[in-house]
Amino acid sequence: MKDLHDMASRARGAFYAVSVASPEIRNQTLSVLADLLYERRERIFEANAADVDEASAQDLAAPLLHRLTFGENKLNQVIRGLHALCGLPDPIGRTLSATELTEGLNLYRVSCPIGVIGVIFESRPDALIQISSLCVKSGNAVLLKGGREALRTNQALCGCVRDALERTGLPADTAQLLETREDVALMLKEDTLIDLIIPRGSNSFVRYIMDNSRIPVLGHSDGICHVYIDREADLETALKIALDSKTQNVSVCNAMETLLVHRDIAPSFLPEAERLFSAAGVEIRGDSGTRELISCIPADEKDWSTEYLDYIVSVRIVSSLQEAVDHINFYGSHHTDCIVTRNPDTASGFMNKVDSAGVYWNVSTRFADGFVYGLGAEVGIATGKLHARGPMGLEGLTTYKYKLIGSGQTMKEVKSGLIGYTHKPLRDNCPF
Amino acid sequence: MKDLHDMASRARGAFYAVSVASPEIRNQTLSVLADLLYERRERIFEANAADVDEASAQDLAAPLLHRLTFGENKLNQVIRGLHALCGLPDPIGRTLSATELTEGLNLYRVSCPIGVIGVIFESRPDALIQISSLCVKSGNAVLLKGGREALRTNQALCGCVRDALERTGLPADTAQLLETREDVALMLKEDTLIDLIIPRGSNSFVRYIMDNSRIPVLGHSDGICHVYIDREADLETALKIALDSKTQNVSVCNAMETLLVHRDIAPSFLPEAERLFSAAGVEIRGDSGTRELISCIPADEKDWSTEYLDYIVSVRIVSSLQEAVDHINFYGSHHTDCIVTRNPDTASGFMNKVDSAGVYWNVSTRFADGFVYGLGAEVGIATGKLHARGPMGLEGLTTYKYKLIGSGQTMKEVKSGLIGYTHKPLRDNCPF
Repeated sequence: MKDLHDMASRARGAFYAVSVASPEIRNQTLSVLADLLYERRERIFEANAADVDEASAQDLAAPLLHRLTFGENKLNQVIRGLHALCGLPDPIGRTLSATELTEGLNLYRVSCPIGVIGVIFESRPDALIQISSLCVKSGNAVLLKGGREALRTNQALCGCVRDALERTGLPADTAQLLETREDVALMLKEDTLIDLIIPRGSNSFVRYIMDNSRIPVLGHSDGICHVYIDREADLETALKIALDSKTQNVSVCNAMETLLVHRDIAPSFLPEAERLFSAAGVEIRGDSGTRELISCIPADEKDWSTEYLDYIVSVRIVSSLQEAVDHINFYGSHHTDCIVTRNPDTASGFMNKVDSAGVYWNVSTRFADGFVYGLGAEVGIATGKLHARGPMGLEGLTTYKYKLIGSGQTMKEVKSGLIGYTHKPLRDNCPF
Repeated sequence: MKDLHDMASRARGAFYAVSVASPEIRNQTLSVLADLLYERRERIFEANAADVDEASAQDLAAPLLHRLTFGENKLNQVIRGLHALCGLPDPIGRTLSATELTEGLNLYRVSCPIGVIGVIFESRPDALIQISSLCVKSGNAVLLKGGREALRTNQALCGCVRDALERTGLPADTAQLLETREDVALMLKEDTLIDLIIPRGSNSFVRYIMDNSRIPVLGHSDGICHVYIDREADLETALKIALDSKTQNVSVCNAMETLLVHRDIAPSFLPEAERLFSAAGVEIRGDSGTRELISCIPADEKDWSTEYLDYIVSVRIVSSLQEAVDHINFYGSHHTDCIVTRNPDTASGFMNKVDSAGVYWNVSTRFADGFVYGLGAEVGIATGKLHARGPMGLEGLTTYKYKLIGSGQTMKEVKSGLIGYTHKPLRDNCPF
């Protein structure tokens, strides 16, 4: 068990240093990190082999073992990611707005880092490099807690991050590794030192974090994604999108879990869909309307709010766009939902009424991803509505401050009428 | 005690309607509201007189009685505010970014309302109209809890809001009034129906809310604002800003509580400052260095983190910019802090290193206000860093969604190389 108060205090100190480091220094850290990872690859692979051996001995499921493995391929991917991140524009110090309040008094809203961020992530050790490099790039300090199975790999990787920081004159404590669940519980108490917690995991895990901390949480929880096949859908497009959304990768949060079908198109769509799903090994759980058209397992109430992450889909017949929208807003997780239709008005209604981070028209739900969206990288997919929504890239790791530059103005002068507001937009960026 | 689950459910339903209403309708509601307030002014004044009578009988303090009073002046101010709000650009439906992901697949980030917002505010009844009109303008539904002393006035005002909504075809339940503390406690439990709580009040009150709800909170808590007089400050400017920041209005969150003075300028600055503060009736609590230069009460550790909201100022001598910055980041509340100096490099260092929503150079801290900043109106001043920071206007009541418009694209086509990403910025706004 670590002294989390001490770690968080050191992270805060590191934040004050890294937040004012130049973009050149922050990018140099990332490029030194890329070199260090390559130089120390044998040591990293050995640490990972030990993690994988232990996990195999404990009969970890095959997909998890696969995620845990960090070999030559993952290393190259991570190094490429670091170089790409260097090339992205600096997210901090950007003037977001500029207004003259009165003559000689200029207000600038300028992007800046958030502070100290705690990130709790799954077994994939490459996530450690992704998250810590995003934090360095955006001038934040980070407390990292990875999967228990990946501890040795994470120690080796975090060592590289800390050495890269030191070699470029930044505090090593900009990135610190937590090792146990007890460490996480202690971290949640440090609400005066930590500004944000990003938990990546199950819905119940995110709720546990929220229930046990005053620190703001940007949660990436369930993905209960829907595809709605409108009565005016193109049949071929509908089948293609339903199949891809469900089966291209069943174990991800942007996979479809529930298929809603307008009753007018159901007789032509569902038998075809059943054929494709059967061929792909997908089990169908249908409502009574569905079961009149195809043979399948009955869906019960619980199915509509279940994230299967498996070769299972629930299917429901609806009589209108509004019924589809109501179902999605009630049972969904506000992640990503799609309509298939040829009618732009229906699509527009769907996209405005569905209360989700991603609302799609005629495209697979699998596109909900920070890299796909062109954000360069992704620290998570936020299912809440505040601060960041949907795939969250560098911008989600920044906030802003108001810089007000005056020449001795007082409120007394305003109240007495000596000074009047102009509220004139300015074109210049903040001078510093 | 009200049925908060039922109220929150009705608010959610109302949100779905108001969120898709046209900007014309939402503005029309505000203008009908302005008319109704004028028509029913006698009834409102009567309700307010009853509130004021009861509060006087219970010996409510004079400043609170003043805030509670809603007369002709306040009415006119509120009506002017409504017309001004109508004139502001629509905060929702704005295309914030537009990217072609691949040919025929366009991604738009579009601003939209947040949902159901719970606002708990102080005794000032005009706040009810301000808050509910900001919510209607931004397409949100709102649950309002005002001060106990203002209940009759708030009932009359909320009645006008609800009637204005109905007369323009929107659900009255877009704005609902809570009446007791028990109602608030019940509201905090409705985390599946309510998207955001905005508590306006003391630090301990905001903490109570955070500790008792999973709903995200945008807290407006303490304002422990600092003015730092640098060694290169212009003496006259320094005195003017220190006096205005402390005394122009002592009972507001953007008033200065602690004055930091560089040791090199202290011998010339402090005696003059003492003279001005004495004349204004301000009590000085100084550290040992201060007490060597002027006679004053000793400051203890607690003073550095106290929001006096009174004619009291704590004063500390520092030896460097860094010491001033460290003091502010450690003891402050990250609200608004000012440096007085003639040196732009020192000012730049201060503004980048101080971790506050507002960092000021040569201007009174009293300028931290949504109206002053040109935001049109203000729903609170956020002292946290996520979502909105500092004075929070209409933009803080919005979030965004990603609208992805495709033509049948699947992830399978991407993975098999049939589709490649272009990530080309688009100039057009989202078509809907």
